Amino acid sequence: MPQAHALEALIEALRRLPGVGVKSASRMAFHLLQHDRDGAVLLAQSLTRAVEHVGHCQRCHTFSEGEICDTCLDPSRDASRLCVVETPADQSALERTLSYHGLYFVIMGHLSPLSGIGPRELELQRLIERASDGMVQEVILATNFTAEGETTAHVLGQALKKRGLQVTRLARGVPIGSELEYVDLGTIAHAMADRRQT
Amino acid sequence: MPQAHALEALIEALRRLPGVGVKSASRMAFHLLQHDRDGAVLLAQSLTRAVEHVGHCQRCHTFSEGEICDTCLDPSRDASRLCVVETPADQSALERTLSYHGLYFVIMGHLSPLSGIGPRELELQRLIERASDGMVQEVILATNFTAEGETTAHVLGQALKKRGLQVTRLARGVPIGSELEYVDLGTIAHAMADRRQT
Repeated sequence: MPQAHALEALIEALRRLPGVGVKSASRMAFHLLQHDRDGAVLLAQSLTRAVEHVGHCQRCHTFSEGEICDTCLDPSRDASRLCVVETPADQSALERTLSYHGLYFVIMGHLSPLSGIGPRELELQRLIERASDGMVQEVILATNFTAEGETTAHVLGQALKKRGLQVTRLARGVPIGSELEYVDLGTIAHAMADRRQT
Repeated sequence: MPQAHALEALIEALRRLPGVGVKSASRMAFHLLQHDRDGAVLLAQSLTRAVEHVGHCQRCHTFSEGEICDTCLDPSRDASRLCVVETPADQSALERTLSYHGLYFVIMGHLSPLSGIGPRELELQRLIERASDGMVQEVILATNFTAEGETTAHVLGQALKKRGLQVTRLARGVPIGSELEYVDLGTIAHAMADRRQT
């Protein structure tokens, strides 16, 4: 768009969203301006509000509007279990399963030495302090089952076990709904090794 | 994210972007809050500015901050040619080719009777008035080569020819860089019919 500076600036700004290239950004800008100006206003307001009000929970480090997030404040949660996840999105996925009622610690990433993210950047020390509050008896490592997530789980696990904490890891196995023929061999091997009596 | 209302509102607002579902929206929100708060502020400002300042050019109907867009105001453009495109994105693509120096008319869509978009919604009357300014000698139809775009070109072409205007259509043919084996048969048939002496 020649010389429509506000439009060009909007397309540039939309490109900062992850996974959005120049074509998607143009499409988004055109859509908002042509069909959904209310949506554009709403998005601007939501962004401003989120940037101003959303910080990190002092206890579990997830995103929170208060100093301590509602999950950490909830007296009905089981304070003897602490589940370590990489991101708030992972926490959200676990919450949606309704299968876990303990507390969380969000490390906001994973170990990635090549990107300069070591134990210090992940605030390993803060996790250890959090897990050593006298209430926590079990730390459940729910980092991703990727190379980085597994390495992170290993390093965290070692450090936590040294403090005498019980450390567990989410079960590896065959995903529900899958056909064995199409499951990768590493997963099948793990499922075989961890097989359970029925 | 339990009870982080500002975050939930942001995710909801991001879902209004075309092609963005709940997972992408969450990823975008987390990315902005965790890694690019400056980007979030910039995006909010750009959205507000665009909504406030970007309207439609009175002459060609493309997005414009002024009453008349810079392209229509440019005295170096060839006012005897008028290129009809569906969207500002199509106009932008044509501009980037540097192969066209005339003016534009953006119909902001295509005929789609099933969606209730008829000639009136596309402001066919306005296009006819615009093309009848005494300067325009050729109207180049550059709507998309889809079923809707072809229908739109046909209807617009009929109406414009009645006014005695010369109407042309972008050439159909084999795209540059393609292997004939993989080009659809309709395209090859058109390219054969429209073959040129070299």
